[in-house]
Amino acid sequence: MKEKEDVRFMRLAIKEGLKGLGRTSPNPPVGAVVVDPKSGEIIARGYHRQAGEPHAEVEALRRAGERARGATLYVTLEPCNHFGRTPPCTEAILAAGINRVVAGTRDPNPKARGGLEYLLSRGLEVRSGILEKECRYLTRFFLKKVLTGLPWVIIKVAASLDGRIATRTGDSKWITGDKARRFGHRLRNICDAILVGRNTVLADDPELTCRIPGGRNPIRIILDTRLSLSPDFKVFETARKVSTWIVCGKEADPEKEKVFQDLGVKVFRLPEKAGRIDLSSLLEVLARQNILSVLVEGGGEVHGSFLDEGLVDEVFFFVGSVVIGGREAPQAVAGMGPKRLSQALWLKNLKVRRLGDSFLFHGLSEQGLRILESNS
Amino acid sequence: MKEKEDVRFMRLAIKEGLKGLGRTSPNPPVGAVVVDPKSGEIIARGYHRQAGEPHAEVEALRRAGERARGATLYVTLEPCNHFGRTPPCTEAILAAGINRVVAGTRDPNPKARGGLEYLLSRGLEVRSGILEKECRYLTRFFLKKVLTGLPWVIIKVAASLDGRIATRTGDSKWITGDKARRFGHRLRNICDAILVGRNTVLADDPELTCRIPGGRNPIRIILDTRLSLSPDFKVFETARKVSTWIVCGKEADPEKEKVFQDLGVKVFRLPEKAGRIDLSSLLEVLARQNILSVLVEGGGEVHGSFLDEGLVDEVFFFVGSVVIGGREAPQAVAGMGPKRLSQALWLKNLKVRRLGDSFLFHGLSEQGLRILESNS
Repeated sequence: MKEKEDVRFMRLAIKEGLKGLGRTSPNPPVGAVVVDPKSGEIIARGYHRQAGEPHAEVEALRRAGERARGATLYVTLEPCNHFGRTPPCTEAILAAGINRVVAGTRDPNPKARGGLEYLLSRGLEVRSGILEKECRYLTRFFLKKVLTGLPWVIIKVAASLDGRIATRTGDSKWITGDKARRFGHRLRNICDAILVGRNTVLADDPELTCRIPGGRNPIRIILDTRLSLSPDFKVFETARKVSTWIVCGKEADPEKEKVFQDLGVKVFRLPEKAGRIDLSSLLEVLARQNILSVLVEGGGEVHGSFLDEGLVDEVFFFVGSVVIGGREAPQAVAGMGPKRLSQALWLKNLKVRRLGDSFLFHGLSEQGLRILESNS
Repeated sequence: MKEKEDVRFMRLAIKEGLKGLGRTSPNPPVGAVVVDPKSGEIIARGYHRQAGEPHAEVEALRRAGERARGATLYVTLEPCNHFGRTPPCTEAILAAGINRVVAGTRDPNPKARGGLEYLLSRGLEVRSGILEKECRYLTRFFLKKVLTGLPWVIIKVAASLDGRIATRTGDSKWITGDKARRFGHRLRNICDAILVGRNTVLADDPELTCRIPGGRNPIRIILDTRLSLSPDFKVFETARKVSTWIVCGKEADPEKEKVFQDLGVKVFRLPEKAGRIDLSSLLEVLARQNILSVLVEGGGEVHGSFLDEGLVDEVFFFVGSVVIGGREAPQAVAGMGPKRLSQALWLKNLKVRRLGDSFLFHGLSEQGLRILESNS
């Protein structure tokens, strides 16, 4: 009975946490619920809104006030036990008079771990590992950073059933339907950065903004090794309104760099690998800029390069109800590609769902799954 | 209440008809059920086994014997009213003393239509249009032939999520799982012919047989415009056991033709169109050979050519849980491809289902749907 209750309230805590997803970097999104263990009444909820603001537990405890005394606290991530930008949550929990703490998953950060042990030593009842998979999924961007030093990489593709992103003449509006495209904007809403290659800017002149109510724009990152794009594209013209970065090689023209900088575009010079930006170096740079998640939206060569380097954690593959064909039609995923099928990107936990007339495949790479399943 | 009963028994009649699917050409598969209208008891079932054998109604009526008197006959297709290879079913129905006839759909063949009117004029209660869509789908190969003179064309693809049928080095075993591949054999079991291009024989040396218990092999058709394949491939070596046809252009080497004929391979010479076999002419030839359904299994160029010519009626697209990538990796659907997205193959009634680790997309082209929906 208690198990069922714990699961139910942890689900609510996750729902709280999701409100902060994509807004908390370099912190993880976290949700919390304070519950009266006798009546089962929800006393208060809270979530972490952004770095520097109170942690989820503190939000919920403040709202609960005196009613927190003797209550149970559900929190998706183990309460922190150290002074970061805010005082340790464990002290706030003790001060509030909470009697029992249920955590979804342990804190992967060695500096922050131990909150549960501390609370236990102070006489509280503690438990962890409720809906752990879901809680770790909520926290995946942060986990990847803590465990590897790199941001979580999401590949987003929108293609025909036969893997084309346009006809041979470049006609691409629209392969997937309204619902699928709206879902795409929801991904932009939760990621710190969106990344595309030069060819996508040339082909589509995209805005790369998040166009859903209440959405917030990710940082826009354009890969352009030779810095050869004209500054006339929408993404550069709006650089003063929406953060826009361009990533080029060391040899790129300094004059051109100046042109972009004058538009408010931040220019990063990175090492090359076989004539292209070295993506591992890029991810390191992004991590240092507090970017915990990157949404890679194409085109085919960029997607292919991320696959070739084994840098993909999660895949959202939207499929329209159309077969395009045409040996010259642009491919959703190009790059060099693997020799053996066993070296290809096999997706784990792959699920498909219908979105209007289109379909969404969602899965994790083996590496992404490992991060979710690593010992916590 | 009667409506519900009618639907229920028609569903059983369809189930009977499915037993003959792929075995009845040039006739349609048809199923029939004889029911006691008072008790709702099923008296007998029957289906059309193959051309020359009794029609489904007659099969069921024979089994029902005296118990058919006063009973209701459910049949997926309007009973025929003419002497074909067998006497008209309408007479058998009258002789058996059937009281009510429920047909799924009308006969599209003008020579055979009018059975229901005739029975009505002889005092029987008649009804048509129960589960009509399903009954027409059961009869789709036959409908296409009657309405257009051509066989029904099914495109079958097995690809990665990004539309590849192998890695750049040709590794393709296996992109889709066991369950999906078994389903592929079920398609072979119901089609009169299976068709592949020269490149597929070169790449895979396939047997193109139906390897499920009780399955029967379709006629194997290989497109090889220049007749340049070696006769050493499995598909030719087994030509005395399983019907094998090769289709080439008018200019192909007569000596080589002789080699294939000696192996038991039937050689067809057909006009070319832009250096390839003209597929419309090919379909006409196949129709004349009593082939009502063709399963096109690839490769990409063959699939693309069928799309380019607008000859596709139905699509089975199997997708493995893998993204392969690689700009040189073989594409599931190539050909010339359309200029505009509106000219691409948009699929109707598209559904997806999971088959083990793989997925199956199944839909109809607009032309295929039109045949199912044409006035009957």
